[in-house]
Amino acid sequence: MTKPFSFSLNATDGGARTGLISTSRGDIRTPAFMPVGTAATVKAMHPEHVAQTGADICLGNTYHLMLRPTAERIDRLGGLHKFMRWDKPILTDSGGFQVMSLSQLRKMTEKGVTFQSHIDGSKHELTPERSIEIQCLLGADIQMQLDECPPFPITQEGARDSMELSIRWAKRSKEAFKDMAGPHQALYGIVQGSTFEDLRRRSLDALLEIDFPGYSVGGLAVGEGQEEMFRVLEFTTPHMDTTKPRYLMGVGKPSDLVGAVARGIDMFDCVLPTRSGRHGQAWTKNGPINIKNARFVDDETPIDPSSDCPASSQYSKAYLNHLFKAGEYLGPMLLTWHNLSYYQQLMGEMRDAIAEGRFGAFEREFHEAQNK
Amino acid sequence: MTKPFSFSLNATDGGARTGLISTSRGDIRTPAFMPVGTAATVKAMHPEHVAQTGADICLGNTYHLMLRPTAERIDRLGGLHKFMRWDKPILTDSGGFQVMSLSQLRKMTEKGVTFQSHIDGSKHELTPERSIEIQCLLGADIQMQLDECPPFPITQEGARDSMELSIRWAKRSKEAFKDMAGPHQALYGIVQGSTFEDLRRRSLDALLEIDFPGYSVGGLAVGEGQEEMFRVLEFTTPHMDTTKPRYLMGVGKPSDLVGAVARGIDMFDCVLPTRSGRHGQAWTKNGPINIKNARFVDDETPIDPSSDCPASSQYSKAYLNHLFKAGEYLGPMLLTWHNLSYYQQLMGEMRDAIAEGRFGAFEREFHEAQNK
Repeated sequence: MTKPFSFSLNATDGGARTGLISTSRGDIRTPAFMPVGTAATVKAMHPEHVAQTGADICLGNTYHLMLRPTAERIDRLGGLHKFMRWDKPILTDSGGFQVMSLSQLRKMTEKGVTFQSHIDGSKHELTPERSIEIQCLLGADIQMQLDECPPFPITQEGARDSMELSIRWAKRSKEAFKDMAGPHQALYGIVQGSTFEDLRRRSLDALLEIDFPGYSVGGLAVGEGQEEMFRVLEFTTPHMDTTKPRYLMGVGKPSDLVGAVARGIDMFDCVLPTRSGRHGQAWTKNGPINIKNARFVDDETPIDPSSDCPASSQYSKAYLNHLFKAGEYLGPMLLTWHNLSYYQQLMGEMRDAIAEGRFGAFEREFHEAQNK
Repeated sequence: MTKPFSFSLNATDGGARTGLISTSRGDIRTPAFMPVGTAATVKAMHPEHVAQTGADICLGNTYHLMLRPTAERIDRLGGLHKFMRWDKPILTDSGGFQVMSLSQLRKMTEKGVTFQSHIDGSKHELTPERSIEIQCLLGADIQMQLDECPPFPITQEGARDSMELSIRWAKRSKEAFKDMAGPHQALYGIVQGSTFEDLRRRSLDALLEIDFPGYSVGGLAVGEGQEEMFRVLEFTTPHMDTTKPRYLMGVGKPSDLVGAVARGIDMFDCVLPTRSGRHGQAWTKNGPINIKNARFVDDETPIDPSSDCPASSQYSKAYLNHLFKAGEYLGPMLLTWHNLSYYQQLMGEMRDAIAEGRFGAFEREFHEAQNK
C-alpha cells in the first residue's frame, strides 16, 4: 500500500481535461464521478454493482461515520474499505459541511466546531486535526481539509472571514496530515470565497502556497444556480495548478457535470443519482423521467436498451412503474443502479471526447439530446 | 414450451422423498423451497441473486397481482416470467388465502368470493374459474385450485362444510383449467379438513377421484403449532398418491421443513426467510440470530464463512449490525439474500441425505446444531 498518490494529464480540449489519478488502491480515470456512500454503503446498491457501473472511487461521509459506527470502530474492524467491501479508492469529506447542515447546537470557534449528534444528541468536537485523525482511522485514500462552507447568499465581508478561517484550518489540516497519513494518501485543500472573484483568488493563492496534491472547489451548489456556478468556475479554474486534480464538491445534474468539465473540473460527487433513483427519477441521455408517471404503466421498453447495465436494459418501464407503485425495495435498487450507470457512461463519453479533441461537439450533442 | 409437466421420484428414506419435477421452464429438485415473490418481486432481491441461491422455482401471489398491476396488464406485457425477469418455473396460489387475510367486506357464496381491494377499495370477484383465468394470464407453470382456508381452531362441522366447498371448487377449477391451460402447466388440488383425521381422508379421497398432477396440503401453519401440524401430516401423507408431488403451503421455519420432509412433503413456500431478513433476523445452522443485537457490534466474522453466498460469507456481522442500525437498504438486501441462501442450502442437504439413505442421521445432526 505504498504506491504514492499521483496525477497525470493525458489530454486537454479547450478547458476540459482528461487524465489519471494513481493510488495504491487503483487508478481513477478523470473526469470522474464518485457515487456517495454516506454511511459506508452506496444506498440500495450491492458494492459489486457499484463497481460494475464503472465507478473507480466512492465517497464516505466523515460526519455520519464518526457518529455511527464511529471511526474507532471501523479502524478496529480493519478500515472502511474492508468494512463496506469496497477495495477501490475512497474519498472522505472533512465532516464540516454536514455538521453545518445536520447537527444541532453548533458552536464554531477558531479551534473548530462543537455540536450535538442528530442521531442521539451526544456531544462531539470536530477540529482540523480531529477531522484528519478520523479520515486516517477510516483509511481514506483522498481526504479533505476541514473548512467552513458559508451559506449563500453571504456578504463579501462574511465570505472573506469564513474563507480566511478555512485557510488557517487548511494549514493545520496539512500539519496533522503530515503526522498521521502515508504517502499513498492525499489531502486536498478547498477553495472558498463564495461568488466573489477576489476572494476566490485570495483563497487559491493561499492554498497554492500551502501546497496540496489536489484542490477542491467548495461553497458551490448551495443555491446559487448553474449560471452563477459556471461563472465562478470561469474565474477560478484558470488560476488553479494545472498539474493537480480539481474536485467540484457536491455537483451535480448531468448538465452541471458537462459544463463543469468544460470549465476544467476533474472530479465530482453528488447524491443526486442515488437519491433521485430512490424517488423514482431516472436520468437518461434524453433528460430525466419520473418512472411513477402513468404514461409508463404499459411501456414494455427498458430505460436504455443499448446499456450494458441490467437495470437500464433488461427491465421494462412498466415493471419499474409497478415496483414503485407497490413500494417494493427493487424499485429504488434498480433505479439507483441505472442512474449510477448512466452517470458513469456520461463520464466515459466525456473522457473519450476530450481525448479525441471533440469535446465541443460532444457538448452540443449532449444538449440537443437532453431536450429531445 | 410444450414439454409436459411431470414428476419422478429418485429415492425415499423412511417417509422422506427426493425427486424431480420437470417443467417446460426447467427442473425443480425436491424437496424444494420456493421463495415468495408476492408482487412480482422477491422483496429486496435482484432476480439473478434469487437464482444464485439455488431456487429452482419461485411463487407469485394471485391476490396481489390481480389488484396491481392486474393479470390483464401482465398478460399484455408478455406474462409474469418476462415481467419480473424470472425464466424458471413460477407457482401461483389461487388468491383465496389472501382474500381472507387482507381484503375488506368479503362475501362468500357457493359461486365464489366478492371483496374490496385493500389498496383502493375497488370491488372484485374471485371464483374458481376466475382464479384459473388469472393464473393462466400470469402464465404460471404450477397453479392452485381456489379453496377456502378455514380459521383455526374451527368446529368439526365448520371444517367439514368448508372442506366440502373446497372439493366442489376443486372440480370447477379442474374444468376451467382444462379449457384454459396447456400440457406444460399443472393444477394442484388442495387437501383441507383442519386437524380432523376423517375430514383430511375425505378431502384426499375426493381429490384423488378428481385426479390432479400434484397435491397441496392447505389449512396448516395457521396457528396450530408444529406438533399438531406434524400430527396432521402423519395421518395425511401416507394416504397421498406416491407418484405425485406434495406441497405444504406457507411453511415454514427450518425445523418445520425438516420435520415435514421426514413426513413425506416435497415442496414448501414461506415468507419467513424474506420477511425476517428484512427485520434483522438471520437463520443459520445454529439457529436464528438477531443481527441488531449489541453483541454483534464489533463482530468481524461473517454469518457463515463456508457459504458460497457473498451475503453470508463476505460481510461482517458488525457491518450488517451497522446497516440495520442506520436503516440502510443494504441491510435487508443482504440478510434476505443470506436467508434464502441458507434455506436452499438446507434443502440441498436434505436432498443429498435422502438420496444417500441417511436422512435420520441428518435430522439428528440438524437438531443438535440448531440448539448449539
